[in-house]
Amino acid sequence: MSHTQYSSALLEKAVNEFSALPGVGRKTALRLALHLLKQPEESVLGFGNSIIRLRQEICYCKRCHNISDTEICQLCANASRDKETVCVVENIKDVMSIENTQQYRGLYHVLGGIISPMDGIGPNDLEIESLVKRVGDEQIQEVILALSTTMEGDTTNFYIFRKLASSNVKITTIARGIAVGDELDYADEITLGRSIVNRVEFTSSFK
Amino acid sequence: MSHTQYSSALLEKAVNEFSALPGVGRKTALRLALHLLKQPEESVLGFGNSIIRLRQEICYCKRCHNISDTEICQLCANASRDKETVCVVENIKDVMSIENTQQYRGLYHVLGGIISPMDGIGPNDLEIESLVKRVGDEQIQEVILALSTTMEGDTTNFYIFRKLASSNVKITTIARGIAVGDELDYADEITLGRSIVNRVEFTSSFK
Repeated sequence: MSHTQYSSALLEKAVNEFSALPGVGRKTALRLALHLLKQPEESVLGFGNSIIRLRQEICYCKRCHNISDTEICQLCANASRDKETVCVVENIKDVMSIENTQQYRGLYHVLGGIISPMDGIGPNDLEIESLVKRVGDEQIQEVILALSTTMEGDTTNFYIFRKLASSNVKITTIARGIAVGDELDYADEITLGRSIVNRVEFTSSFK
Repeated sequence: MSHTQYSSALLEKAVNEFSALPGVGRKTALRLALHLLKQPEESVLGFGNSIIRLRQEICYCKRCHNISDTEICQLCANASRDKETVCVVENIKDVMSIENTQQYRGLYHVLGGIISPMDGIGPNDLEIESLVKRVGDEQIQEVILALSTTMEGDTTNFYIFRKLASSNVKITTIARGIAVGDELDYADEITLGRSIVNRVEFTSSFK
């Protein structure tokens, strides 16, 4: 790529910073920087400060390791949530995805990744010990494993399953099958096969 | 769109700020915010501060109105640039585009827009008076008009042409024609027509 000539070092710095973001090229970075130049000063100040505060003040819930502004997150602190069910997810994005369904009222446990020897991530790099401790300490009845359906996800599922085998907790995994609205034609064989094996009884109120 | 549940107000604020940028949706905004959370604190501080400094400290060159860190921009201050030629462009992005070609050694004059009655932009909203003054005050021999080939661009070209008619300055406009690498098949008729009317003599060293 040819080296763009900037007449301002401040602009060049801002473009460099923007283009360090994932999925942002130098053209987009320039567009964003020039956009900010046209905005009112207080709104640009608000943007810059929100980024700095996010990084400096954010913390992670001591209990479920979800992102939080306080020591214990809003979900764990919420008295109306079902304290007997814990859903194990890979990262905080998955917590949001599940929360957005509005179908789950239990708690979460964020592993912070999945076991992946290729990337040098072992069980001790993840919040697995703390999950086992929670199952022992809290009144948890069911652990739902909601990890990716990849080899790494399956490995992690199996590792957690073995770690919790001695406790009396029920271990489940989220249903895999044909997505709502999908046609059978386009489904892969493994998903379609699993959806037949794990078929559920038809009810008219099923959503 | 369903309302995403954030367990952190800081994260929600940062996502809102990112998604206010042009072309950034809420999914991308969340991805960018989560990316920043994983970066070292000093690099996020650097990013936030570069945005704030860009907006607070940037200024515009008093002479050519290009973006600058100083009262007179690096291009105007550069003694090796050709002071007799001024290229008139719409905005600072156009300056960068022309600088990137490395084919131009003269100065610039940034109008800050083009005459557009539909958007309520008249000649007095643009740096046209200051261009006329520069032509009178400086030793300018040629003014190159490098505006968009739109009705607004043509109107602005004509307005500037009339304003400078009384001075002895030579007025030119950048060549329009078939882009390098383009096939004639795909060129529009007006461009192709103009490229025939304004044909140039063939030389083997032409680039």
